[in-house]
Amino acid sequence: MKHNFGAGPCILPKEVFEEAAKAVLDFNGTGLSILEVSHRSKEFEEVVVETERLVRELLNVPEDYSILFLQGGATQQFAMVPMNLLPENGRAAYLDTGVWATKAAKEAKKVGHVEIVASSSDQNYSYIPKDFQIPADAAYFHYTSNNTIYGTEVFEKPATAVPTVVDMSSDILSRKIDVSEFDLIYAGAQKNMGPAGVTLVIIKNELFGKSGRTFPTIFDYESHAKAGSMYNTPPVFSIYVSMLNLRWLKAKGGVDVIEQENIIKARTLYEEIDRNPFFKGTAAVEDRSRMNITFVMDSPELEAEFLALAKERNLVGIKGHRSVGGFRASVYNALTISSINALVDTMREFEENHK
Amino acid sequence: MKHNFGAGPCILPKEVFEEAAKAVLDFNGTGLSILEVSHRSKEFEEVVVETERLVRELLNVPEDYSILFLQGGATQQFAMVPMNLLPENGRAAYLDTGVWATKAAKEAKKVGHVEIVASSSDQNYSYIPKDFQIPADAAYFHYTSNNTIYGTEVFEKPATAVPTVVDMSSDILSRKIDVSEFDLIYAGAQKNMGPAGVTLVIIKNELFGKSGRTFPTIFDYESHAKAGSMYNTPPVFSIYVSMLNLRWLKAKGGVDVIEQENIIKARTLYEEIDRNPFFKGTAAVEDRSRMNITFVMDSPELEAEFLALAKERNLVGIKGHRSVGGFRASVYNALTISSINALVDTMREFEENHK
Repeated sequence: MKHNFGAGPCILPKEVFEEAAKAVLDFNGTGLSILEVSHRSKEFEEVVVETERLVRELLNVPEDYSILFLQGGATQQFAMVPMNLLPENGRAAYLDTGVWATKAAKEAKKVGHVEIVASSSDQNYSYIPKDFQIPADAAYFHYTSNNTIYGTEVFEKPATAVPTVVDMSSDILSRKIDVSEFDLIYAGAQKNMGPAGVTLVIIKNELFGKSGRTFPTIFDYESHAKAGSMYNTPPVFSIYVSMLNLRWLKAKGGVDVIEQENIIKARTLYEEIDRNPFFKGTAAVEDRSRMNITFVMDSPELEAEFLALAKERNLVGIKGHRSVGGFRASVYNALTISSINALVDTMREFEENHK
Repeated sequence: MKHNFGAGPCILPKEVFEEAAKAVLDFNGTGLSILEVSHRSKEFEEVVVETERLVRELLNVPEDYSILFLQGGATQQFAMVPMNLLPENGRAAYLDTGVWATKAAKEAKKVGHVEIVASSSDQNYSYIPKDFQIPADAAYFHYTSNNTIYGTEVFEKPATAVPTVVDMSSDILSRKIDVSEFDLIYAGAQKNMGPAGVTLVIIKNELFGKSGRTFPTIFDYESHAKAGSMYNTPPVFSIYVSMLNLRWLKAKGGVDVIEQENIIKARTLYEEIDRNPFFKGTAAVEDRSRMNITFVMDSPELEAEFLALAKERNLVGIKGHRSVGGFRASVYNALTISSINALVDTMREFEENHK
């Protein structure tokens, strides 16, 4: 059995893979594959409705927010957010906590005026900036709640009265959030929601048409909301698998329960990193992510040796991103504590071998 | 066994469903599901490379064209085409052959100046306009090669010296084309290429940057080409299933062979429509589509009765689109002649019942 610590697309529960495989052969007893059913069929419309209902229930999304299933990943949201929210003469405030936050701001700059309110680039994004001012006249404030590459996470929404937009691609559904604190939440599905190919957007309806700009309908949140995510042919299979995964999360007890598991998984691994003399964490302790745990060793030779051992022990996807180096263990919802234990055991075995 | 005549997402070969289901459980012996592998893994990069190579081979795409796998369907291309190709002071020429062609022009109008060179809206789009002028200074000429709703198809590219952009969503890979006649071809995958969730774009490289506009990178063809369709996380599973389907097409003998089959399938059904006194075709005979065959009856009561009989005979998805009424049999590549025979038999049975 492989332990998949990949950063995304990532591990999903085994039961989800099994049900998805069945539906590829026969979807819901229709005699048709989920890959050949019409998106306008009653059966698939029920899938979209249930997926939306599960997101609303699991995250306790208020009634005045729309839940959309789009395409193009978080990257397309980098463009759609300013198109929809940033007026021609307005400005948007961005917090720079890493590569993805930088990209979001860079793409928004192609649409309008952007101000970076703070950045942790001075220390290779190993911490979350805390003291900064968000201009009161900003059209919106944007930040990335979890920084996959650097292993940092923003647990508290920065205080501001301006509409807040957050890229939650890599921590949505991993912990309790109060959706009403935010105005727009977006997330590429391929971490804790489902497979690649679908993007979740949760938007407060009063934001529709906010920028006053003219742009193609496909980029307009309101059009997708009015059409129930069926403005154009949706990514049928990716939505279906997301539904299966959300059902799994609900059956487990929901976000509260998974958050407790995620806290235990992260704590177990961080404790080993802090204890084991061969490893050290890279992120500021108070900003450590529960989803992506980054750590390094003192020498590159030892790192290569540990990677080889990890491979022997069936640990997949733990090589760190090139901009941080070392290792990254992504511990998303579907990764079990036994996979964490397998990694910890391997770290101890390595220590033992070098005594 | 169901005979799936749905207009799309549509039938794919049974072998493709079987292989796809296996990969959902174990992709290529990796011990991981295709839904959890990294898009940056060697195994998935090979999938993208092979899918591209198969498209290039099957359609004989010249070297100076890029092949891209994007998201957002043809609808997103309605926006991306003018963003990439229409300069601020230029104009684009559109041929109006139905709802999708109209939408393409409408979305382009949100970007720049558009001229409709001809329309068959006067006869509910039941024919393809033949005599029209394309302005020689147009930035590009756009048309839809197959009109899914009305059952018409453009087999010959209209003569023009301006760059030609064609929406081939519903007939790409169904017949031989000379790619070098076109400058940009796009197609939502969910007919003859694969499942919903991926969009094929074939673009002549000299078109990159043609509009001179500034817009977000995610909408720029050149960025996707440079990144080998990995500018952002691609729709992994939809690309994988497309690869399986293209392999199937190649093993069958390629586009030449499937075109011959498609000609026979379409002819068989049109002959019955023309022979059977209860049915009549809706499209001009010379413009009849090989992919979507539209036909009606004289009375709505009889139509309901035929639909009921068709359902009993396991014929799925033959109800016509509301703007044409009656019936539509979509006869894409994977639909076998035995499904056509089942439909013809049902039409004869109906005739027999009413003698």
